Amino acid sequence: MVPYGQQHGQGFPWFAGGEPCWLPARRAARLATAPTTVLGDDPVTATLREDLQVLAADAGAETSDGRRLVVGALAELSAQHLGPVLAGALAGTDVPAGEGFAVLARGGEVLLTAARPAGLRHGLGWLTRRFPGGWPDADVTHVEEPRVDLRVLDHWDNMTDGPMGVVERGYAGGSLFFADGRVRTGAADLARVRDYARLVSSLGVNAVCLNNVNVHATEAHLLDEHLGDLAHLAALLDAHGVRTLLSVDFSAPMSLGGLDTADPLDERVAAWWTGTTKRVATSLPGFGGYVVKADSENRPGPHTYGRTHADGANVLAAALDPFGAVVFWRCFVYDCHQDWRDRSTDRARAAHDHFAPLDGEFAPNAVLQVKNGPMDFQVREPVSPLLGALPRTGVAVEFQITQEYTGQQKHLCHLGTQWSEVLRFDLNAHGGGEPLRVADVATRSRRRGGSPTGVVGVANVGTDANWTGHALAQANLYAFGRLAWDPDLDPRELLGEWVEQTFELPGDLAADLVEVMARSWSVYESYTAPLGVGWMVRPGHHYGPDVDGYEYTPWGTYHFADRDGIGVDRTVATGTGYAAQYPPGWAGVYEDAATCPDELLLFFHHVPYTHELSSGSTVVQHVYDTHFAGVEAVESSAATWERIAAHVPGPVARNVTERFEEQLRSAREWRDQINTYFFRKSGVPDAAGRRIH
Amino acid sequence: MVPYGQQHGQGFPWFAGGEPCWLPARRAARLATAPTTVLGDDPVTATLREDLQVLAADAGAETSDGRRLVVGALAELSAQHLGPVLAGALAGTDVPAGEGFAVLARGGEVLLTAARPAGLRHGLGWLTRRFPGGWPDADVTHVEEPRVDLRVLDHWDNMTDGPMGVVERGYAGGSLFFADGRVRTGAADLARVRDYARLVSSLGVNAVCLNNVNVHATEAHLLDEHLGDLAHLAALLDAHGVRTLLSVDFSAPMSLGGLDTADPLDERVAAWWTGTTKRVATSLPGFGGYVVKADSENRPGPHTYGRTHADGANVLAAALDPFGAVVFWRCFVYDCHQDWRDRSTDRARAAHDHFAPLDGEFAPNAVLQVKNGPMDFQVREPVSPLLGALPRTGVAVEFQITQEYTGQQKHLCHLGTQWSEVLRFDLNAHGGGEPLRVADVATRSRRRGGSPTGVVGVANVGTDANWTGHALAQANLYAFGRLAWDPDLDPRELLGEWVEQTFELPGDLAADLVEVMARSWSVYESYTAPLGVGWMVRPGHHYGPDVDGYEYTPWGTYHFADRDGIGVDRTVATGTGYAAQYPPGWAGVYEDAATCPDELLLFFHHVPYTHELSSGSTVVQHVYDTHFAGVEAVESSAATWERIAAHVPGPVARNVTERFEEQLRSAREWRDQINTYFFRKSGVPDAAGRRIH
Repeated sequence: MVPYGQQHGQGFPWFAGGEPCWLPARRAARLATAPTTVLGDDPVTATLREDLQVLAADAGAETSDGRRLVVGALAELSAQHLGPVLAGALAGTDVPAGEGFAVLARGGEVLLTAARPAGLRHGLGWLTRRFPGGWPDADVTHVEEPRVDLRVLDHWDNMTDGPMGVVERGYAGGSLFFADGRVRTGAADLARVRDYARLVSSLGVNAVCLNNVNVHATEAHLLDEHLGDLAHLAALLDAHGVRTLLSVDFSAPMSLGGLDTADPLDERVAAWWTGTTKRVATSLPGFGGYVVKADSENRPGPHTYGRTHADGANVLAAALDPFGAVVFWRCFVYDCHQDWRDRSTDRARAAHDHFAPLDGEFAPNAVLQVKNGPMDFQVREPVSPLLGALPRTGVAVEFQITQEYTGQQKHLCHLGTQWSEVLRFDLNAHGGGEPLRVADVATRSRRRGGSPTGVVGVANVGTDANWTGHALAQANLYAFGRLAWDPDLDPRELLGEWVEQTFELPGDLAADLVEVMARSWSVYESYTAPLGVGWMVRPGHHYGPDVDGYEYTPWGTYHFADRDGIGVDRTVATGTGYAAQYPPGWAGVYEDAATCPDELLLFFHHVPYTHELSSGSTVVQHVYDTHFAGVEAVESSAATWERIAAHVPGPVARNVTERFEEQLRSAREWRDQINTYFFRKSGVPDAAGRRIH
Repeated sequence: MVPYGQQHGQGFPWFAGGEPCWLPARRAARLATAPTTVLGDDPVTATLREDLQVLAADAGAETSDGRRLVVGALAELSAQHLGPVLAGALAGTDVPAGEGFAVLARGGEVLLTAARPAGLRHGLGWLTRRFPGGWPDADVTHVEEPRVDLRVLDHWDNMTDGPMGVVERGYAGGSLFFADGRVRTGAADLARVRDYARLVSSLGVNAVCLNNVNVHATEAHLLDEHLGDLAHLAALLDAHGVRTLLSVDFSAPMSLGGLDTADPLDERVAAWWTGTTKRVATSLPGFGGYVVKADSENRPGPHTYGRTHADGANVLAAALDPFGAVVFWRCFVYDCHQDWRDRSTDRARAAHDHFAPLDGEFAPNAVLQVKNGPMDFQVREPVSPLLGALPRTGVAVEFQITQEYTGQQKHLCHLGTQWSEVLRFDLNAHGGGEPLRVADVATRSRRRGGSPTGVVGVANVGTDANWTGHALAQANLYAFGRLAWDPDLDPRELLGEWVEQTFELPGDLAADLVEVMARSWSVYESYTAPLGVGWMVRPGHHYGPDVDGYEYTPWGTYHFADRDGIGVDRTVATGTGYAAQYPPGWAGVYEDAATCPDELLLFFHHVPYTHELSSGSTVVQHVYDTHFAGVEAVESSAATWERIAAHVPGPVARNVTERFEEQLRSAREWRDQINTYFFRKSGVPDAAGRRIH
């Protein structure tokens, strides 16, 4: 098998193994109808040339309207390639360094250029979005660059099936990268990876971690025996401007290296990581670094040796540094053997307690990967205060694209809305200091230099033909990639982009679909766990309701509902003190039940069922109202979809219709269990007299 | 490999692969110290001869005190073998037909005889129990026969590992019979099976079903491709008087036979079963029949074809009849897709509703296998009313020896006490009619002939060296076998027998151990689900508390606790009417909360937490009191064990000590979760002011 990027000039199918998502040939091919010159033979440019050639073949004859296209990195351009007008325009354009790009069009002559070839990829994505009818007719001067340095997808893929499945928390089939204990190497498998790289690079994603953060024995050997096979995957990704990351096991110096310790301050351990990393980095084209889950949920880590997380991250960072690579060190560290009887321990505090004191102690190429909330990707959590507590450390906010707690790609739950809300959240609002939005944290290194910052998403894709299980969950991947490029993009506009590119819907139906998707996160929240309390899911698989499912477990996820009230007291005055982890503005707002936003009330306060919300309703009546309304909203969305379904391809129509049926069944189950639970517990009847079982 | 029973005269280790349990060589060997004549070459007698030879070798030189032993079935005996006194005694003794035996001792000459060789096995067990010092000194005339025809162990063993493990609900290692998708055939594996056969035949067990009632695709092929390997196992069992049963998939005529239907009234289906069964019966020495779980928990069955359970059982019975074999048809049939919102469906009613109307419609060699209670082996349930509703049908009461809901062999929970209580339960008490104890049902065919009746237990053994995971759980297997032989045996005396045979303890410690074990069922009940309500376990694995774990599931196992009260109304007056499935005596007692026994109150009634029990306590105070007391009892039992541990072999001491530690941890978890749950819900404080979290 010849790695992709060395197959110059060979034809290949456009999306061989699955749906083209937002890159259907019917749109993309229109960009390939004019005489085209692609300059450069680096892997990215060569691959892009192949794509355009395939699209051109797909589109049929070239147009003869006089347009002429030139694509190439700056260093490849010379006067001979450009007409004088375009050359002049280029001379007056400040083409961004790094991964940005410029598009210039003058009198039918079009130039896509960039400082680095990767920028051409991102620029092609922009053109596909911006000019669905083909290359622009009018003159264009467009310069764009990413606002974020690290734009990463983490895959939780395993090499073998096990208790957590091939893809942990995956709801879209098997792994794109692994099967049967090996790295995929078959031609059809690699074609699928190529398609995936094309999809995500069109959005601007620039790194993909191939394997699960929970590194089992088999996957540990990605660092040695599987390196040769991995090189093929890495080459494919590299040819799209996407770097390859690997999750590593902190104890690998013992399990792979035969040492008697993994102590990060032991010289032999450091030497082992140095040697291993050199081998990995020189084997994998575009190797970008490691992802580490250490001292977390029973994974090994530096605490075993009395060392800090900084000690642990820095030994890896040192080994990675010569290769311009980064260690992503996850901050998902908490006591998962908590005793529910111990009210003094609060899982929400854990990440900040562990990592905020270490700010400044990490190497420049170490990045702390912080989940968006303090718990674990619930449909509603406050923003993690740790995101504001690492001014001297590389940091990336981690979102979960795969819908572990948000309907598992059986329910429609568009998360772009949630992520945008998080990214726009100002940690210093309400008098806490200079504005510090999560977006500002993510864009810090682009604006100010220093340790890299960015956005990470846990991928939601698999071997299903539609990539994401639920066809409409493609929009979550799309929104993630776009927001990682520019955290200030409007999530509703992104939905519009996605719908417009993916389907061919009459305008009103497109708007209806955008509306259904835009509200779907809020709808999901309404029929599941109320008022920010979270966690009322079946333990283990996390699908469907179980109000007390986690209430007495070691996972630290409690609601403390009794016959009088519910919620977790995280105030400084009478609770765990978590509220004080925020800067003073939010600390004050959250501390007081009267000012705490309704949607997070139960996260911060234990209140009576009869507590009056700022909405004017009571807690228990809010529970009843939102749960009845949530099911009605799903019914309405499903009905809207039925009008849309006739206008989309049959497989998509059937897929989404079936999932709406399951969502509706499940939403009713949620409604009835939650309402019954609280009615049984509170004894308060529904003010509207609706049926509670 | 030569099947056991053809290895006459070869030595083999006594309990090669595990602990000897109640048959330690130090005791058994004393029976082999006198000159011994074993008459007969049938497999059972030959095997018994081998056992005695091995024991004799183990015991060293034969005694020369003039004793002489003759062992043989009646047909093998002639004047030349017996002295005149013994011959005279034999002439005056009514040796029972069937599986009974007689022991006669006169002046140092001892005879063990039986009508059938299997009786010799059971008689040897009796001698080992009765004469730990060796053959009797005094004159003995003892005649004994089983009071029950069917004395069966069901194994839930799978051939491959899967979601439910190799042994479904097994807590003692792998399967004795299967590994890696195949029937075990290795010499060491078969030695272990031989040991198992010796253990259970010493108790009188006369049939073992080798595979799980949930028959998966691999196990379906036990009926064809694995028959040759199975024959070795069957020969081993047969050589101990134990018949081999197989669980079969009702749809096998389709999956194995290639038919397009499994309709029991289709001639081709009947022909397929006839042909298949002939092949099985002629391949497996001592083949005893089939066990079937049909139309139950998603298993296929006759309902698919609009046929009755009788139709389904009878087609198998007809195929089995020529071979004196039986079909065990399980009555564990209920709706496992119930909607918790539907209060009109009561799982407790299901078995009686399904099967009682069919009484009299089953073939003479069909046996309905009825769980001891209407639900599923909870620590406390009422006795199944179906057991009294099948006067014209073969019937077996099914107990669960494996501790699925009773501590999974991590907790000490001696179930002989429970089974004895069930067996002594008079279904017709309180004016319901002529006494009809469950023991009377089980012994019916021995007393009156007709369709066979008996007792079935789901085995608790596996490949662990101590057979049962928890060393003291061996006593559950022991008690089951003994009660299956004679349901009126006293469970506490059986514990005494087991302790005396298994260990060498000073008398007071033996009594202490018996006491600890005798109360352990009651102790387990006290710290788990209260007052007969059951089911407050973690869904799926069924270990540890989860009060609401099954409350909203499709399994039909609810408690309906709200802020005011708890329990399931199964009365005729206001509930599901289940109480009326009992004969009028019990129906009346159960119908009225004032007369319903405390320990079943919440099974039959929904009552306020402040309801006064006949004990004088209230429901909620009873919950608190029993849960505090339960933990204290475990603490006390563990302390007693520490005094005993020094007197048992090290592996046993460590095994039981470790399990007591886990039992104590788990019991405290149960206490605290249950008490907290009911305190949160009821708001009623503990009258004694103890700590509730």
